[in-house]
Amino acid sequence: MSVTEEIAAFLSGANREDIPSTAIAPAKRHVIDTLGVAVGGRQTALAQPLAKTFPRGADGESFLWDGSGRTNAGDAALINGTLAHSLDFDDGGVALTPMHPSSPVLPAVWALCESAGRSGQDALAAYIFGVEVECKMAGAVSLAHYDHGWHATAVLGAFGAVSAASWLLGLNLEQIRTAIGITASMTGGLRANFGTMTKPLHAGLAARNGVMAARLAAAGWSASQNILETKKGFFDVFGCGEVSELNLGKPFHFDSPGVSLKRFPSCSATHHCIEAMLALKQEYGIGADQIDSIHCGVNVISHQALRKEPQAASAEEARFSLHFTLSMILLEGSVELKHFVPTMLARDDVRALMEKISVGVHPDLATLESKKRDFGEVAVTLKDGRKLSHRATRVRGRAPLFLTDADVDAKFLGCAEPALGVEKARGLLTALRRLESQEHLRSLLPAAYGLAR
Amino acid sequence: MSVTEEIAAFLSGANREDIPSTAIAPAKRHVIDTLGVAVGGRQTALAQPLAKTFPRGADGESFLWDGSGRTNAGDAALINGTLAHSLDFDDGGVALTPMHPSSPVLPAVWALCESAGRSGQDALAAYIFGVEVECKMAGAVSLAHYDHGWHATAVLGAFGAVSAASWLLGLNLEQIRTAIGITASMTGGLRANFGTMTKPLHAGLAARNGVMAARLAAAGWSASQNILETKKGFFDVFGCGEVSELNLGKPFHFDSPGVSLKRFPSCSATHHCIEAMLALKQEYGIGADQIDSIHCGVNVISHQALRKEPQAASAEEARFSLHFTLSMILLEGSVELKHFVPTMLARDDVRALMEKISVGVHPDLATLESKKRDFGEVAVTLKDGRKLSHRATRVRGRAPLFLTDADVDAKFLGCAEPALGVEKARGLLTALRRLESQEHLRSLLPAAYGLAR
Repeated sequence: MSVTEEIAAFLSGANREDIPSTAIAPAKRHVIDTLGVAVGGRQTALAQPLAKTFPRGADGESFLWDGSGRTNAGDAALINGTLAHSLDFDDGGVALTPMHPSSPVLPAVWALCESAGRSGQDALAAYIFGVEVECKMAGAVSLAHYDHGWHATAVLGAFGAVSAASWLLGLNLEQIRTAIGITASMTGGLRANFGTMTKPLHAGLAARNGVMAARLAAAGWSASQNILETKKGFFDVFGCGEVSELNLGKPFHFDSPGVSLKRFPSCSATHHCIEAMLALKQEYGIGADQIDSIHCGVNVISHQALRKEPQAASAEEARFSLHFTLSMILLEGSVELKHFVPTMLARDDVRALMEKISVGVHPDLATLESKKRDFGEVAVTLKDGRKLSHRATRVRGRAPLFLTDADVDAKFLGCAEPALGVEKARGLLTALRRLESQEHLRSLLPAAYGLAR
Repeated sequence: MSVTEEIAAFLSGANREDIPSTAIAPAKRHVIDTLGVAVGGRQTALAQPLAKTFPRGADGESFLWDGSGRTNAGDAALINGTLAHSLDFDDGGVALTPMHPSSPVLPAVWALCESAGRSGQDALAAYIFGVEVECKMAGAVSLAHYDHGWHATAVLGAFGAVSAASWLLGLNLEQIRTAIGITASMTGGLRANFGTMTKPLHAGLAARNGVMAARLAAAGWSASQNILETKKGFFDVFGCGEVSELNLGKPFHFDSPGVSLKRFPSCSATHHCIEAMLALKQEYGIGADQIDSIHCGVNVISHQALRKEPQAASAEEARFSLHFTLSMILLEGSVELKHFVPTMLARDDVRALMEKISVGVHPDLATLESKKRDFGEVAVTLKDGRKLSHRATRVRGRAPLFLTDADVDAKFLGCAEPALGVEKARGLLTALRRLESQEHLRSLLPAAYGLAR
């Protein structure tokens, strides 16, 4: 069976009831987390140009997560998806190829469920099926795909989105293969745009493309029936290497190995070194004024994503900066959302400390293959000549250090309260906790925000 | 100067008045031709699922070319672009990398001109600037890009669309670089979808992506400022090889070497052999009943695009079939739009003749480089044992055999009359002939169709 066929067979035979509770519980945490970071994204610099380019109003199929209005399902998926990835605080896969699974999939699911009058349980199931497909694809493609310059959240995320959308629209086997075929001709997204607003846009585009491809297939469109594995098809053209079986749902990726949530609001390539710096600070009580220099050693793929220049001109750039995130630990004690603001980037002591930090590929992590045993190493030279170093192999939020329900709730409120105000943020959290009991998903947001419908 | 910068500098300094009349005259023929084939596309199988997925109404920024209603500029660009490429009868570049220049660019131009109240002259200028950028890119990238599996009409067409849109929106240098950066993360399109409705969709997507990227840039979005040439940027990731200078406007591609128009409603890879078959038929008066077998020799890139199986199940497949197009010459005397219908594909004599035809790479055209001296060779074996063959090196519609104004008008009416009726088709042609005198482009279609606004 071809991989295209495997995905189509899985989705056309997938039932809500087949999902084990061990997959549902973490998935629900990810739904809450995704809406939290998306609502928080309303305060980033991209919110205004996004709203200007994609106007919203009182009418439209689907509601925007931040309560700012309604629009058609495709644009709602694009807007919510872009906001969800805008803080770079949304979840991550645990496959070798790094990706953010929820920001491309959940916005597509939500927009279609609102449009089609589907329930909270259907939304959760579609979301789990979509994440299942994209995470298994991320695990099956060669890391060379990502290394080549593709942003997997964009490229593979679109297949997650179209999978979820295809299941929701009840497409048959042939239609799902068509939808996958269309998606392969729409997907893309370059890592060379990291550190700009176009990176979060990738997630929104993937979400919208998934909605559009599934709708075209439902309407009778045609496309290659084996786009993934055909000669000069997706796997070939996008440099994915040999991909055989995905083993969808055996077990669900949400069940094992699990999906990661972010504890720190910056590119996941910064997280190992953030943990190492926190450990050094805790163990030795180092202060910023003691620092002569700091060197960070990371894997070759993380190194590509990270900024090499010490300074960062925008919050978007700072999210990819170890210079900035480690400076926050030394100067502010932690790395928090509130730090990613122009005033902080302009502070003299911050700028001075950032100049003392450098980043390189760790000699043990120079091959793509070495990413399987990933770590981050921070080596500090103090002004008194002492040299301290720490190698972090674990990161909070990733297996086995999964965030708890309480962690997720706290993170949600930390993101949503500044954006929505305390009352609306708490109302939204309460509503999301009751997701499965929602007969019509389209009622959830208006009710949480105290709006008429 | 980087190529990204070169494009941005060209567009930000481009004036309508700088375009020589030798570029304007052919460009106007291409505008007429593009609207003709788009309106004709209304009768293809994709028109219905397209309308179902993208509804149109009485309101919206932009009018659809076939007079079926209005919608927002992005969707109008997508719908018009998809229809324009749906018959595979739209124009072609003359660069080494094959592409259809107008179907991605003109719909973007038209939608934005209607939305922004621009004139017919502005539309023509923006269109020429957009075609200039994409055709020069098609001439500058390695043929390996296309050979890898990318559909240049989609991938490069988006840069044509965003260039035209950027000029129309009056973007400054930095904004244009941003718009190009966004486009590079949206573009894509696989040749593996040739022979399906997704191929024409590529042109529509390119048009819509161009509109969206330019609008985002105008609204204050951010993206890489050197996406084309940066490491792991567009040229790298899309396998374009070394690209240096584009020499935009020196001279305009429309001026020299000129852009091709199609005389036959099928994939351009069929055209050399169609000419060869027509020559053989004319010289020897061959009839279908005399044929024992026919072998077509084409270049390696054309061979990839063409169907190898004798039969075709749909008009989309027949457009990529030498078996079908050569059978039409022998059985019907020519290759015309009206032949691409299910009844013709099902006819016993057609099916029998198609089985006698085969296609292969001509030994002299086996390398990518050999495409520079392209031809098509048809070798016929008659039942009486005679062997006849013809090598066609020229194709009607391509330099130096450009179509005339009269040819274009006839082709336009041949496409538009069956779709719109004689009166509306002629009204539209008359209006398009007066394109430059149109103060507000948005009045052209409603007036031609006798609608209120």
